[in-house]
Order: sequence, then structure tokens, then C-alpha cells
Amino acid sequence: MVHITRRERFNAAHRLFRPELNDSENYEVFGKCSNPNWHGHNYELFVTAKGKVSDETGFVLNLKSLSHLVREEIVDKVDHKNLNTEVDFLQGKLISTENLAKAFWNQLEAGVKLLGAQLYCIKITETENNFVEYYGEE
Amino acid sequence: MVHITRRERFNAAHRLFRPELNDSENYEVFGKCSNPNWHGHNYELFVTAKGKVSDETGFVLNLKSLSHLVREEIVDKVDHKNLNTEVDFLQGKLISTENLAKAFWNQLEAGVKLLGAQLYCIKITETENNFVEYYGEE
Amino acid sequence: MVHITRRERFNAAHRLFRPELNDSENYEVFGKCSNPNWHGHNYELFVTAKGKVSDETGFVLNLKSLSHLVREEIVDKVDHKNLNTEVDFLQGKLISTENLAKAFWNQLEAGVKLLGAQLYCIKITETENNFVEYYGEE
Amino acid sequence: MVHITRRERFNAAHRLFRPELNDSENYEVFGKCSNPNWHGHNYELFVTAKGKVSDETGFVLNLKSLSHLVREEIVDKVDHKNLNTEVDFLQGKLISTENLAKAFWNQLEAGVKLLGAQLYCIKITETENNFVEYYGEE
Amino acid sequence: MVHITRRERFNAAHRLFRPELNDSENYEVFGKCSNPNWHGHNYELFVTAKGKVSDETGFVLNLKSLSHLVREEIVDKVDHKNLNTEVDFLQGKLISTENLAKAFWNQLEAGVKLLGAQLYCIKITETENNFVEYYGEE
Amino acid sequence: MVHITRRERFNAAHRLFRPELNDSENYEVFGKCSNPNWHGHNYELFVTAKGKVSDETGFVLNLKSLSHLVREEIVDKVDHKNLNTEVDFLQGKLISTENLAKAFWNQLEAGVKLLGAQLYCIKITETENNFVEYYGEE
Repeated sequence: MVHITRRERFNAAHRLFRPELNDSENYEVFGKCSNPNWHGHNYELFVTAKGKVSDETGFVLNLKSLSHLVREEIVDKVDHKNLNTEVDFLQGKLISTENLAKAFWNQLEAGVKLLGAQLYCIKITETENNFVEYYGEE
Repeated sequence: MVHITRRERFNAAHRLFRPELNDSENYEVFGKCSNPNWHGHNYELFVTAKGKVSDETGFVLNLKSLSHLVREEIVDKVDHKNLNTEVDFLQGKLISTENLAKAFWNQLEAGVKLLGAQLYCIKITETENNFVEYYGEE
Repeated sequence: MVHITRRERFNAAHRLFRPELNDSENYEVFGKCSNPNWHGHNYELFVTAKGKVSDETGFVLNLKSLSHLVREEIVDKVDHKNLNTEVDFLQGKLISTENLAKAFWNQLEAGVKLLGAQLYCIKITETENNFVEYYGEE
Repeated sequence: MVHITRRERFNAAHRLFRPELNDSENYEVFGKCSNPNWHGHNYELFVTAKGKVSDETGFVLNLKSLSHLVREEIVDKVDHKNLNTEVDFLQGKLISTENLAKAFWNQLEAGVKLLGAQLYCIKITETENNFVEYYGEE
Repeated sequence: MVHITRRERFNAAHRLFRPELNDSENYEVFGKCSNPNWHGHNYELFVTAKGKVSDETGFVLNLKSLSHLVREEIVDKVDHKNLNTEVDFLQGKLISTENLAKAFWNQLEAGVKLLGAQLYCIKITETENNFVEYYGEE
Repeated sequence: MVHITRRERFNAAHRLFRPELNDSENYEVFGKCSNPNWHGHNYELFVTAKGKVSDETGFVLNLKSLSHLVREEIVDKVDHKNLNTEVDFLQGKLISTENLAKAFWNQLEAGVKLLGAQLYCIKITETENNFVEYYGEE
């Protein structure tokens, strides 16, 4: 069993807020991240899959196929987009990095299986000082 | 004469567009960077000053003072903000990285002089693949 | 369950040595790291907490609170300090990166619990080639 | 129990191919990585060992000894080499990053034990976008 | 006048040698870089152009066009290739990083002018410890 | 004319202070960097030389020779040392990064000439946020 990781990147706008709170209440909970006029990030996404190494190819899975999957299911939908308003699979969610990681897991889990491996971890770095990791645990 | 550089960081939303064009015209010129719903970046700002090294302090200038200046004149005004709509000194400008660099130069030139040195370069990285540098040349 | 990590940095002096050995004996065990006149590092500290994602905030814990905790319990006590002589919670310890990680764990474990999550890992990078990770295992 | 990691680097040429396929068949499976005239990488190798922290030294193991081991068993044999044709312990293998990780594990497992710790992970980054990790699991 | 830089990356094999010398003579001059069985690198290429900022676009030049140019004139020809044997514009050259930089300059100078700016610098990093810069000076 | 840069690294202790001031006066000028018990850094040193590319070697100068020179003249003298008390060529100097850069220039200027090139720039990074560059200008 080997773990293999592919990094993809995207740039997007978002804000942290709950619609039932007003601006100053949101500011109290989320600080400047709740700015109603949005802010944004260069996100880095690390997708880790786990599986047996094929004798035929030496691969856990074909990295090009993994990259293609991640772009199709995630990057094409979030890059240069507003994460709060423009992404179908994020509708109605609080756009924290934690929730992004869980949503991205759901976007990829079945596809990674079709590539012959198992999704192991979604890691998202929001800034050089902050990142989250999700391993599919409830 | 020694050059000294301070890095500061900020996260902001923006879009590239000209108000006299409609959305599809803007898309033709600026591609996905013109998304009307905004996108954003983790910007890195490198401010380089140049000057003589003081015998008293060993410094070209006091880096803490430079950091304070950059935060007051730039970072506090752009961090977690919408660069197109919320920043006084960017009003009416096309928010390209090139124009950011020139506007930041104007924000800092006088203050760096007061610290006893000369502003030499503004460098802004927008992504790991793109950056601009402005040396105050017309 | 999501893992979330906050990076903090500090610069400090230290040396590796055992007080019961003389300088040349210490040199044999610890090499140039035992220099009696000290040397130092830019340490990077990664604190990882693990917990459930709150429906109210989308957070495992408030990263600002975590950053505040790490600064109060660790960074303010070690930054620009001599780790061997000036840090209360390191008194009497051999200042290896391994022992730093264990001591930092003890400084943070209770505080992370009060923030509603569980301390998962302390990672310290001493140079770009060396780092340690401690998961609280005896 | 603490984990400690040492990074070493090497530059090498390789290609991905199966000798029983012809060039165009190999291209179909491995793409441009199958170029018969070779290509190459700056590989980064992260070797993680796990063990108890010694009261005498504060170390899981002596990092200099670990570095020496990794150079002797791996770096001296692969650096500035052709991984397909010049490395004894890689003969007959498909030179994927996955297989490198497994082969490196075998090169180091016994030696790390002699240093008083346990080999925990081999991580190899091939490009800034791709890396594998092997934990010794069948 | 603003400088703008685009980074592109490629992975390639090469060796340093002079055809009129034998292997051991080449080893004396070029060390392990002369390995007749090749080695390779992850090269990073930074292309810097200089020009006036357009009032219409806010750009010195269109970065997408610059990226397209660099890929067409350089990356597509060198990526996953053997720099000594497979690249038309490098035929007969000693494949040092210095000579790469000069050859890349020649590949791009006219094209950057057509994009409305002036080629200013070619920077190539061969490893994290070595890089060259060429400004078109004889 | 091509510029070529070699990076070397060292870890050292230092403090900023003037001997004619007392501790609290030094604190006023230099802040926590004046801690009498020292602090330290992982310094990165970038040495840039400039010269013609040799037809014989493809080199501006032999990078191994440059690395050897930098180690002999600088790294061996400052690595794991106290910059204020243990380095012959820094005696009596205020150990700011600016003054380090100028002192390193003097250590290397003649040696780079003997290697057939011209010293062009000394760059020292003290932290990821601060660096200085010295081009030999009075």
C-alpha cells in the first residue's frame, strides 16, 4: 500500500457568515473574514489516494487521471469563482476551509475508486499559516 | 548603500474589468479574471528600501518602522477587502497587479524617506507563477 | 472529524549539552550543536488540533483563539530567547527538537481542549532538512 | 514516541516503460514520461523514523548518523545517475516514484533499526505537484 | 515601466561534457554532472518582461500570451526531453544552465516584442541552491 | 555576461547591541533583538557572481569552486557560532544583517576574482520576511 498525492491550485473569493446574523453579529463571530464585500485566497488542494502498486504500471493510480478528475470535479468549478454564490456543490454551506475539505471529499470519493484506489486525505491550505486535513472520518 | 526588503502579506478579492465594457466583452479581454462575482488571492508584497548603513544602529532603516508603515499605508486598507470597491487609494483604477504596484509605491514613497532611506522596489506576487516589480520608473 | 493546523514561528538560541560532561565530551556526543557560545534557529511550529466541525461556525475551533493560545503559552516565552536559560517550562531539559516538541505539547494540551478540540500533533522544523513530530504517545 | 524526519536530495534521470512494449505502446501507458531518451528530476527524499527519546541525548536517533545512512544506502547510489540502468538495487524494476519509495524502504529498514529507532515513512517528491509516501504496509 | 515575470517549469535530462574529451577527462572538468548515462532536473524558468502599463488593460503584456509563447518556444521543446540530443535550438551547445539561459533568451526576444514589451531577464533555477540570470548583455 | 548564484546556509546566534549602552537603552533601540542572552537564526546566504560564459566549460565560474570558497571564507567560520563573539572578521562590528552582508562581501570579493568572475551581490535572508542585498556600492 502506497499513498500518492496530487496538488492542484485555485484562486477564489469567499466570506464567512451566517445568513441569519446581521453584519455586525457576523463580524463578532468571524472577524474580518466576514467582510460582506468578499475577500479571497490562493488555495492549494492536496488530494491523497491510497492503494496497491500495479505490477503493470508501477502506479497506485494514473496521476494524470487523478489530476483530470480533480480538475473536472473541483478546480473547474471553483477557480476564479465566488465560493459562496457560484459553486453548485457548496450551495447553502458555510464556506470555511473545514467545510470545503468535506465537500471536496464528496466530490472525489467515487471517482478515485473508479481509478482503482481509495481516497485517503483532502488537505487544503488557505494561507501559509493555516491548513486543514480531512480523512473521511465522521 | 544596502538594499533591505520587508515582506508583508494580505488576502483580498478583486476582478479585472473596464466599466465601459459589458461582461462578455470583459471576458474577451480579461478571461476568467473578469468574473463579475469576484475572485481573490493571497498577495505577497515585498517592499525594498535603499540607503546608507547607520554606524549607530547597523540599519539602513528600522525594519519595525518599515513594517509599521507598510501596514498603516497598505495592509490595513487592503487585507480582507475588495480591492475594486473598498480601497480609497485604488478608486477608479483597473486592479491589475501592475497598477497595484504603482499605487503601493505612491503610498510608501514619502514615508520611506521619513525613515531615512529611499524606496527602491515594490514587488507583488499574485500567484506562485506571476509577479510584478516596480522601481518608480515612468 | 477534521484536522486543522496553525503555523507560528520563533527565533531562538540554544545549545545541546549535558551539564555533567565537559566541552570536549559534549562535542563528541553533540558535535557543533554543543558550542558553549550558543547558536540559533528560525523554528517553525505547526500545531494540529482535531475535532468535529461546528454547524454554527464551520470551524473545528477558532483559529484566532488557537493562534492566541500558542503565542501566550509558547511563542511569547521562547521568541528571541535563549532556550536553555530563559524559558520556565524548559528548565533542566536537554534542548533537543524532540524535547521541545514534548514540552510544547504539555503547554498546549489543556488549552486546546478548552477551545473545544483535541491536540493532535506538534511539529517543529529546526532547519529545512530536519523536523520532528509528536502525537502525544508515550 | 517521537517521529523525526531527515530530508536528502538527489538529481537523476529516468524513464517509465515496460521492456516488453514498444515505444508507441509505452507512450500510450506512460505518456511523455516514457521518452526513450530519458528525462529527469530533482527528487526530495524525506526519511521518517520513530522511537523513544533518549534521556542521555534528547534524541530519537542521531540525525547525523541517519543522514550518513541515507547517503550511503541511497543518495550516493542514485545522485546524478540514471535510475533505470545504473542502480544495483533498482535493477529490473519499473522506476515509478511508488517503486522508488518501496525500494528505498528496503535499503534503510535494517540500518534505522541499528540506530535504535524504527523506520516509519519514506516520502519522495518528484515535482512540486506530486509525491508518494510509503509506510511499509503490504 | 513595470517588470512582470512568468514562471514555467520543465523536467529534463542532460549531461555536461565536451565531445572532444573522453569520459575521465570530462569527469575531471564537470564532475558527476558529466555522467554519460545522464541525470536530470526539475528546472524552473522565470521570464521577465518590461514595458509600459496599458491604460486599456492595466497590463504590461497579457500574461496568458506570455505563458503561451514560453510554452510554444521553450517548454514544449524541452519538457521531458534530453536537452543534449532532442532540442533543435540547443544542438551543438554545452548544456550548462548559463547556456540554457542564453538560448532561451534567443527563443523569446522577438516574441516578447510582438506582445508589446521588452524581454528583460531569463532566470533558470537548476536546484534550490543554484540559479543563473541572463539580461541579454554581451 | 551571465549572473550565477550559489546558496549556502548557516545557523548562528547573535544579538543587536552597542557596548556603550546599557541593557534597557539597547532594548529601546533594538527591541527583543538586543536580548543579552542571545537569540539565533537559520541564515540563507546567496552569493551572485557575474562574468563571461567560457566556451570551454559553459560556465561563468565553477560552482563547486564557488561553493568551496564560500564555505572556507564564511560558512565554516559562522555556522553554529556566536556571530558577536566567535568570528574573526566580525570583531567589533554591530551584527546587523546589513553589516553581515558588507563583511561577507569583503570575505569573498578577491576569491571570486580568482575564479575568473566578479562578485555582484551578497543577499542574506534572516527570516522569511526580511532580507538584505549588498552590491558593493559605497
